[in-house]
Amino acid sequence: MATNISRLTSLLLGTSLAATMASANGGELEKVMKARGLTENDVIHAAKTYTPSGGRDEFMIFSSGGQSGQIMVYGVPSMKILKYIGVFTPEPWQGYGYDEESKKVLREGNIRGREINWGDTHHPAISETNGVYDGKWLAINDKANPRIAILDLNDFETKQIVVNPVFKSDHGGAFFTPNSEYILEASQYAAPFDNNYHPIEEYKETYRGGITFWKFNDKIGRINQKKSFVLELPPYMQDLSDAGKGASNGWGFTNSFNSEMYTGGIEVGMPPFEAGCSRNDTDFLHVYNWKKLATLTKNKKNYKVINGIKVIPMSVAVANNALFLIPEPKSPHGVDVSPDGEYIVVCGKLDTHASVYKWSKIQKLIKDHKYAGKDPYGIPILSMKDSLHGQVELGLGPLHNQYGKHWKDGEIYTSLYVDSQIVKWDYKHLKVLDKVNVHYNVGHLCGMEGKSADPQGKYIISLNKLAIDRFDPVGPLHPQNHQLIDISGKKMDLLYDMAIPLGEPHQAVAIRMSKLHPEVRYKMGTNSRTGKISKGKTLAGQERVVRKGHNVTVYATLVRSHINPERVTVNKGDIVTFYLTNLERAEDETHGFTVDNYDVHASLEPGKTASVKFKADLEGVFPYYCTEFCSALHLEMMGYLMVKDPNKKYVSAQKLKMKTMSKAELKAEYDKTVAVNTATDAVIQSVVKFLKANHYEKYPTVKALVVDALDQYGKIPAQKKLSDKAVKAGDLEKAVLFENMIWQYMVKTADVGIRAKNLLVKKVATKQSAAAAAGERAFGEGGCGGCHVIGKVSSGPDLTGVLQRHENAEKWVRNFILNPKSKYHDPYVEGMINYFNLRMPNQHMTKEEVNNIVEYFKWVDENANLF
Amino acid sequence: MATNISRLTSLLLGTSLAATMASANGGELEKVMKARGLTENDVIHAAKTYTPSGGRDEFMIFSSGGQSGQIMVYGVPSMKILKYIGVFTPEPWQGYGYDEESKKVLREGNIRGREINWGDTHHPAISETNGVYDGKWLAINDKANPRIAILDLNDFETKQIVVNPVFKSDHGGAFFTPNSEYILEASQYAAPFDNNYHPIEEYKETYRGGITFWKFNDKIGRINQKKSFVLELPPYMQDLSDAGKGASNGWGFTNSFNSEMYTGGIEVGMPPFEAGCSRNDTDFLHVYNWKKLATLTKNKKNYKVINGIKVIPMSVAVANNALFLIPEPKSPHGVDVSPDGEYIVVCGKLDTHASVYKWSKIQKLIKDHKYAGKDPYGIPILSMKDSLHGQVELGLGPLHNQYGKHWKDGEIYTSLYVDSQIVKWDYKHLKVLDKVNVHYNVGHLCGMEGKSADPQGKYIISLNKLAIDRFDPVGPLHPQNHQLIDISGKKMDLLYDMAIPLGEPHQAVAIRMSKLHPEVRYKMGTNSRTGKISKGKTLAGQERVVRKGHNVTVYATLVRSHINPERVTVNKGDIVTFYLTNLERAEDETHGFTVDNYDVHASLEPGKTASVKFKADLEGVFPYYCTEFCSALHLEMMGYLMVKDPNKKYVSAQKLKMKTMSKAELKAEYDKTVAVNTATDAVIQSVVKFLKANHYEKYPTVKALVVDALDQYGKIPAQKKLSDKAVKAGDLEKAVLFENMIWQYMVKTADVGIRAKNLLVKKVATKQSAAAAAGERAFGEGGCGGCHVIGKVSSGPDLTGVLQRHENAEKWVRNFILNPKSKYHDPYVEGMINYFNLRMPNQHMTKEEVNNIVEYFKWVDENANLF
Repeated sequence: MATNISRLTSLLLGTSLAATMASANGGELEKVMKARGLTENDVIHAAKTYTPSGGRDEFMIFSSGGQSGQIMVYGVPSMKILKYIGVFTPEPWQGYGYDEESKKVLREGNIRGREINWGDTHHPAISETNGVYDGKWLAINDKANPRIAILDLNDFETKQIVVNPVFKSDHGGAFFTPNSEYILEASQYAAPFDNNYHPIEEYKETYRGGITFWKFNDKIGRINQKKSFVLELPPYMQDLSDAGKGASNGWGFTNSFNSEMYTGGIEVGMPPFEAGCSRNDTDFLHVYNWKKLATLTKNKKNYKVINGIKVIPMSVAVANNALFLIPEPKSPHGVDVSPDGEYIVVCGKLDTHASVYKWSKIQKLIKDHKYAGKDPYGIPILSMKDSLHGQVELGLGPLHNQYGKHWKDGEIYTSLYVDSQIVKWDYKHLKVLDKVNVHYNVGHLCGMEGKSADPQGKYIISLNKLAIDRFDPVGPLHPQNHQLIDISGKKMDLLYDMAIPLGEPHQAVAIRMSKLHPEVRYKMGTNSRTGKISKGKTLAGQERVVRKGHNVTVYATLVRSHINPERVTVNKGDIVTFYLTNLERAEDETHGFTVDNYDVHASLEPGKTASVKFKADLEGVFPYYCTEFCSALHLEMMGYLMVKDPNKKYVSAQKLKMKTMSKAELKAEYDKTVAVNTATDAVIQSVVKFLKANHYEKYPTVKALVVDALDQYGKIPAQKKLSDKAVKAGDLEKAVLFENMIWQYMVKTADVGIRAKNLLVKKVATKQSAAAAAGERAFGEGGCGGCHVIGKVSSGPDLTGVLQRHENAEKWVRNFILNPKSKYHDPYVEGMINYFNLRMPNQHMTKEEVNNIVEYFKWVDENANLF
Repeated sequence: MATNISRLTSLLLGTSLAATMASANGGELEKVMKARGLTENDVIHAAKTYTPSGGRDEFMIFSSGGQSGQIMVYGVPSMKILKYIGVFTPEPWQGYGYDEESKKVLREGNIRGREINWGDTHHPAISETNGVYDGKWLAINDKANPRIAILDLNDFETKQIVVNPVFKSDHGGAFFTPNSEYILEASQYAAPFDNNYHPIEEYKETYRGGITFWKFNDKIGRINQKKSFVLELPPYMQDLSDAGKGASNGWGFTNSFNSEMYTGGIEVGMPPFEAGCSRNDTDFLHVYNWKKLATLTKNKKNYKVINGIKVIPMSVAVANNALFLIPEPKSPHGVDVSPDGEYIVVCGKLDTHASVYKWSKIQKLIKDHKYAGKDPYGIPILSMKDSLHGQVELGLGPLHNQYGKHWKDGEIYTSLYVDSQIVKWDYKHLKVLDKVNVHYNVGHLCGMEGKSADPQGKYIISLNKLAIDRFDPVGPLHPQNHQLIDISGKKMDLLYDMAIPLGEPHQAVAIRMSKLHPEVRYKMGTNSRTGKISKGKTLAGQERVVRKGHNVTVYATLVRSHINPERVTVNKGDIVTFYLTNLERAEDETHGFTVDNYDVHASLEPGKTASVKFKADLEGVFPYYCTEFCSALHLEMMGYLMVKDPNKKYVSAQKLKMKTMSKAELKAEYDKTVAVNTATDAVIQSVVKFLKANHYEKYPTVKALVVDALDQYGKIPAQKKLSDKAVKAGDLEKAVLFENMIWQYMVKTADVGIRAKNLLVKKVATKQSAAAAAGERAFGEGGCGGCHVIGKVSSGPDLTGVLQRHENAEKWVRNFILNPKSKYHDPYVEGMINYFNLRMPNQHMTKEEVNNIVEYFKWVDENANLF
């Protein structure tokens, strides 16, 4: 019968989604669609991306932040941006570059003594185990100032920056080798390896490209610079790279776009660089054996040391069969190795084809020493034709590739810059399968683990470079546009436009959310940049100010809602260091710290110790405060740094006469404060009782809140002691203040405790029947909730137990709702009217709604203990 | 009959949305809901927020960026973040703080000679005309380093920063007066107005609070510091403020939270500041007449000058009836004046009530000199009871208020920090109407123009301070959570959780999108920070390098895809300035510029001139390049800065021997290049013909693209001249290069031209019938599109005109799709099979689908000229 109904419905409805909405949910969806001009497809797309409150994503994206110098993190399919992480540019929210610990990391990126305070981040990469992303470390390059940064995916912080000592720019990095042995970084604009001037006329002789192989220690997540090395290459302007895997493990591949070795010079009457560097039909794919190269570095005769790094000359690499060239269509962008390492797909930006090279063919040519020629630097050239599996015409401006879940069948996706399309094609059987338009010019595209050994399919993100008419205008500088495309069906389906509010992301990398397990707090006293316990770690009771000559070190703690100490006095000219430890254990209880006007800032997540340091060269009074809205008393979390000029004589101000309180007044205030605390404590105890009775410990999220609440509550006895001591000493003024502090702790306890209680109620209440649920909705939407709050007296009486309050109560309630007037003279109702000074109005409900509301009241009574 | 069907459907379906989905759209929505665990309500919420590609928002939100020091811009209801604007913190993507023009603005924010490179932005405000937002200027304060920044909403850039010369921190700003006469800025942590040390023991005597009234010039959007002044206040720790309007125009209101004047001192055994400053049940609302105060500054006897600014002593304000205090519930946050200026709503954070003061009552007390007493500084205190309209118990931790569309009926919304709720209530009739839970602790809330004289209702955004379990974890530092709430119905409805990826936004302000009309390009050569033409403006042909002693000035231009000049040689130690002009007129054709390793960066939107300046103190070769992916040849847009040591003798490198081309080879290449250009030009001409024939000029978005394409195309004749000149001079090498440049311009023309064509096709094609539309879908989803592309030969033949190609074509096509095998030996099909090396497969379509596809083909033929 159910099937029949469904068929009949189907028949009546046709296939139009919108038509069915008319009757559903009071037609609300149709109303919304009409009002907002949404089509049926829009609603499907909305449902495919919309992520309700508290919902989770399937993939996490790490996107380069482009010229912002940062990394952007977002979720798929929600396309919610979750974090910008400071990498090459100082970022004050995170204290990055504003506290001493992170400054140390940022300053590792100085070049030849110069502070660099930004970066042009390009290609993020996730560390790999057997070619599969392991979710442990993230690397990214800076094109403008050739550097690599390493981030820890345990806390999403930048831990290391290394400077390339011989390159003057980079582009084709970062790429991990399949077991994270090395990170590849290719140069971009050729330049001399030394730091000297060489005239442009000697470009071919003295300018060089190269690949740097950064030795990576996967255990500690740091690059070992001493074990790293460089392969010298001709000045062909090397571009993107990829490490081989599977069949091609041990090898690397790098594109180039100026094998013409043109150098431009508009100012001397020559055509611009762009004309000369795209003159030839082909450029060179560089093929090199990094495993072999690594062993070469063990013998001194195989390398030169330039600016402190080992550089293997081209001639040595050639002599050891470790370096080859293959022609590729001109000015290519992406070179992307298939998950099994057997195919290498190259897109020639100024060609309409993708070229699929086959590793077994290349390998054979190498093995057989079958060369088509040599380049001017003596590097063997392999025949393009003999290396190719084949070519496919994709469209105008093919750039980059990502593999799909069915890569074994040849599934691959490519971005077309000029055509503004993503094309799905088959790299094995060499045919185009589908195309989808994007808005507009796309650079990279990002598949879900789409360049790993285990592509996940499902989505492709198109990283578009122009947004023009896509979003509401925000001035001449537009956001970029990342478009989410569903690739799970036969046809690609464009789901969502995401505006990029900061920087121009160059490339992004996706990983399954299930592979990430970041921490929410640090071990107490951790210097997060080193992972070690900070020498400034300070526990409660250890706060102190230590002076050594002109160096003043403050060991401070932060906890809801005070900084200890609250006043620090130093001399003008002192070097002041604040070590700051956040004593909180509760998740998300971050505190911030700044001293006004001194240009320092720290973000202190639970357990972290960080420090700020400055010369107190300005006399005066400078507030310091917690910069994160951490609790109800956040605004009050402050202190004063006083900078005294030791060479100045200060005259005391004339004391203002203020009214003081009499002993009796003080006693009255003391008694009142204690009474308020006793009453507040009773409320807290009732919440605690409720939590215990309902086994809060069974629900981890509730338990975490209760632990935090009890932690706050546990601070009270110490304050009580101080209060009692003050009472004994006859200092009621001070006792009142300590009693107030007790009250503050109670507020903090209640703040978290109530949140825990509300969460627990939802977990333990009995399941609502459909009628009761409909009744709750009717109760809310019908206007009852305006005056009645379940479990509380509000503008009308509490309705918990209403079905126990009257004879024949269900009927009584029904009648009252349907015709309130009829009961205005019922003595009970009359009493209520007088008390609240309001009459129950007629909400014109249907009988069905009223019946449902009664069912809802029954459910309320079943769970009366929870409200 | 239609009604009957609808009723029947309704009957069969019940009211469940999910049930109806089973049959609709092939059940796709239900499938998605099931797969993603979405409820019916989720789908409604998705539809209320999802904004399809190219869609527009109704409101724009300017949110403070908190400790990031920036401003965040996003749309409502899409909740897409559109931009982070650099304000107090350098931001390299925008060149903010990395080019000379913006550095000048940023450095206006130096304090006592110290560079400040971050800010703690709190309260953004939009300029007003008659109390209504006019969408012209935006102001925001920095709490940590008391400053105000002004942004221009014409280009979303920061134009001015002013430093408060007497405050040591601020909080209660920025607030515009109703006609933007002044911007109010209240201090936060009391401190001496002078820059000297004063011991904390003299807090009451020498520490002061205050309000600064920044005189604003609404025409040019700048603060006039000379015409600004300060009102001295007691050290009560002034907090939020609001300017009166309507009835209370001319007055201002400021809260406070430490009327106890407690100063803490845990380190000396006293309870923390948080305990002492919330001891009393009430603090003070400050009420002052800014119009009166402004006139007082005209007479020297009424003010003192401290650190260069006029300061009106409290005594003078009191003597002139311009300053009063009213008790308010303790430690309040928001003070929010109703749209007509008659009510002032104050929320006492540590009280459960909102207090509604009535302006007419306050005014009468002032007029009648009816004071309840005086504070220790002699300021008259008005009776709280006599000033109040009434109080309402809202819940735990009420903070801030926003007015709804029906504010005349009393509609107001308040955030509850401890209860984690938004409460809707009636400030006129003093009753609670509705509450909604938020996740979690909310600080400010943002209504749509909810604090202006013309609140728009519709939405409330809850700015939540903790996110804990709301999003996928990103380490110990969590994003914040802005929650969008629909307030258009009776009950508030929580629609969307938005993660905040950067900074902790403190407050946000909303404005109707229709009020904003930002520019997309600058007048050629504009210094965007001053709005004036830059002295470095450089047009095509004016590029040059000017040397004066050690100062080298490069006047450079940027245009797709080269920087002119491409080589600049300077001496080590020279001071180098690059003036950069982006010659583009096309929207979104931004170029970026950096010199590697020199820590400079500029973002050059169309028409902008900006400059970077540095000392060339490092010898060597430094690439410079365009940092924005501006066109297909973006990567090639580069040049070299050569820094020579004038004291060094350089030895020339030995020339490498390279193969050169023979004259015949060169001639062949030249001919080939010219031929390619001729062919490419023919394609361009055909596109142009299509565009003209279809009246591109009627569609502004298409027209803008065509203008840009023709602009690129127009650059070709000059290159052709150079090529021809080279041919005449016998330099075929050079001629080839210029021909390549011509080709590059053609690529750029085609890039934009094709986008214009595709856009135009959509605008001019005939309307599809429902059957044709279904047919197009079936064509796409049934797999046809894998081989056939309309208008193009792909992996299968072009199907344009297929209904003309066969006898009885409709029937032929139908049969062929339903049973391809039957026609494999039809000579035409056989030819195709041989040509494409592929056979048409059976896609198992229904007869209806095939009929629809035929209808689609008819539509294609109708519009054949468009493909």
